[in-house]
Amino acid sequence: MTEEAVYETRRRRVYDWMEREGVALVMIEDAENRRDSNLRWLCGMPADALLFLSVERKSLLVPWDINLAAKYADSDFLKAYSDFDRIPARACKKAAEFFKIPPGSEIELPPLTAYPRFLEYADALAGFGVLCRNGGLSAELERLRAVKDRMEIALYRRAAAITSGLVDALIKRFCTGKLKTETEAALFIEAECRKRGCEGTGFETLAAGSARSFAIHAFPSYTGESFGGKGLSILDFGVRYSGYTTDVTLTIARGPSSEQEKLLDLVEKAAALAFSMIKPGAATASVASAVDALFAEAGKAMPHALGHGLGLDPHEGPMIRNRSDNRWILEPGMVIALEPGLYDPVLGGCRLENDALVTEHGAEPLTNSRIVRL
Amino acid sequence: MTEEAVYETRRRRVYDWMEREGVALVMIEDAENRRDSNLRWLCGMPADALLFLSVERKSLLVPWDINLAAKYADSDFLKAYSDFDRIPARACKKAAEFFKIPPGSEIELPPLTAYPRFLEYADALAGFGVLCRNGGLSAELERLRAVKDRMEIALYRRAAAITSGLVDALIKRFCTGKLKTETEAALFIEAECRKRGCEGTGFETLAAGSARSFAIHAFPSYTGESFGGKGLSILDFGVRYSGYTTDVTLTIARGPSSEQEKLLDLVEKAAALAFSMIKPGAATASVASAVDALFAEAGKAMPHALGHGLGLDPHEGPMIRNRSDNRWILEPGMVIALEPGLYDPVLGGCRLENDALVTEHGAEPLTNSRIVRL
Repeated sequence: MTEEAVYETRRRRVYDWMEREGVALVMIEDAENRRDSNLRWLCGMPADALLFLSVERKSLLVPWDINLAAKYADSDFLKAYSDFDRIPARACKKAAEFFKIPPGSEIELPPLTAYPRFLEYADALAGFGVLCRNGGLSAELERLRAVKDRMEIALYRRAAAITSGLVDALIKRFCTGKLKTETEAALFIEAECRKRGCEGTGFETLAAGSARSFAIHAFPSYTGESFGGKGLSILDFGVRYSGYTTDVTLTIARGPSSEQEKLLDLVEKAAALAFSMIKPGAATASVASAVDALFAEAGKAMPHALGHGLGLDPHEGPMIRNRSDNRWILEPGMVIALEPGLYDPVLGGCRLENDALVTEHGAEPLTNSRIVRL
Repeated sequence: MTEEAVYETRRRRVYDWMEREGVALVMIEDAENRRDSNLRWLCGMPADALLFLSVERKSLLVPWDINLAAKYADSDFLKAYSDFDRIPARACKKAAEFFKIPPGSEIELPPLTAYPRFLEYADALAGFGVLCRNGGLSAELERLRAVKDRMEIALYRRAAAITSGLVDALIKRFCTGKLKTETEAALFIEAECRKRGCEGTGFETLAAGSARSFAIHAFPSYTGESFGGKGLSILDFGVRYSGYTTDVTLTIARGPSSEQEKLLDLVEKAAALAFSMIKPGAATASVASAVDALFAEAGKAMPHALGHGLGLDPHEGPMIRNRSDNRWILEPGMVIALEPGLYDPVLGGCRLENDALVTEHGAEPLTNSRIVRL
């Protein structure tokens, strides 16, 4: 299948949903503070645009940068954002006119639309039913995207192979003392992932030497400080390959104390337990709850979720956490990250994160991150 | 003034505003997809927290990572987000109880609050007046933050000196052929800015060699491709120093054609014209409109705004663009970036961006970026 055909196939699933739901026009928006990779998933445009889909099965893309859209995006129609003075409510009104949406029809806006801006849309779209909800198209897209298609799984195998290669290269350099600081570790990844064909990293690399690993997400994300010295150091990174992000964390433990060894051991046990429970039909809340119980037995608690799905976003469906509103059930084709971790202001932190593909009968490990004792 | 005193002084200006406006409780939220550096400006917490300010002049911080908050943040009270199951509407309700906000009082939410989530807050806060608007506290904070205080100006002088040092170091390496690819240029900045005491870059560096400079914001932001070869290459970067971001763009023009030379010349003229108009009392729309007229005379058009304020965000008040809703007037203490640019799918792009401080009588250039002809 060509890339264009992939996007058209995805849009068809949205058109089907629109027919079923009786929605005449939908708007997807990617903008600063309203990032939405549904845009890229539906038409290939990597960022900064509005995409309108009409129930008449046609798409209109309104990009901020029309040159970039001409190069990357697939849509039936293309209009510059500046034609609408870059005012989204104006573009939305004009899109409704362009597609001749009958008055009284329903138009759905992205659920990230801020409340004050929603009022502007409602004003511009007087005469239409204006929808803005979490359970609408965005929920459908989250479900659709959580199960990867064949092209996406092929991309993930390549992204994961690059990631595992980087994990090995990093560990080798920590062992031989060639990477000594947080910055050296982080920039090694930035340079190497691009050499190996990636767009870049999937998110800002978190490299926390033993003085800073107590924080779940170290701030700043990396500094000139030592990495891999006495104690626990954490390196959390992912590569972005054709848009798709991996996410792994390795812990370097140099001369761990017996208290620190206890953390390492618990986190390794948690990672193995979680992976063993991954199979189609499993409720992700149960997986997370088993890990929470393992930690609780040892008098510890993990201050974040066990894991999450991966895709064009570094965090997407399925969520993997022990919360009453989590109803995700694993299905073949899901790509997930599992990241048990424990943190202590004095001992430091330890996290072990790997990516896996849910298969017909269980799970296939995609990456090879580990806890390294030096 | 200690850092704590700086934050308390800033919060006092918010308490004053709350008294004037009759708002009993305000919430500031920094979260994924709802980034808000007002959090850091008001209490030093760099990311991921809720901050509640009561008209009784007390603050409550609810961070995602309590260890990080203990290290960085200044507030009167501190509670873990997990105490509220990490559900913001629940935290907000409990904060209203904690501060004993009388029923019927007004509570203001951030204007980035999505419409569906707004409905959840309204539900949790039944009995209160729930405000969510662009013209409220966020507009007041934008005004307050646009004019930098003495501590901030001192930080900017240091950030700008580091930036200018990097510009010189980069140009030297482009001239001598030591930096040959987009990745080499971008990672040189990542490494050097940290060596020179920065938290990191202010935003993802955009390095676009001549094959990619036609785009306003190159995608991907940098690749393994050649930089500084025949034609026009653009490098757009900033450093983040104690939270504050600079923003400069330099263009490397190697053997420009006469058509390319025309672009370079126009952009240099536009930069000089814009800088000459910077002084207290000037309407930023007029500055932008003068540059638009200069380009229009030559049959060209700039597809983006002329500039913007700088601070904890790489884009903040004052906006500098020619749009009817732009009413910003320059004041002493504002720190701005001016970035005229022209782009052509065939010739490539050219942008020249520098930062300046608005002074009592005019403007002081802060950075030294330039168009380099090789």
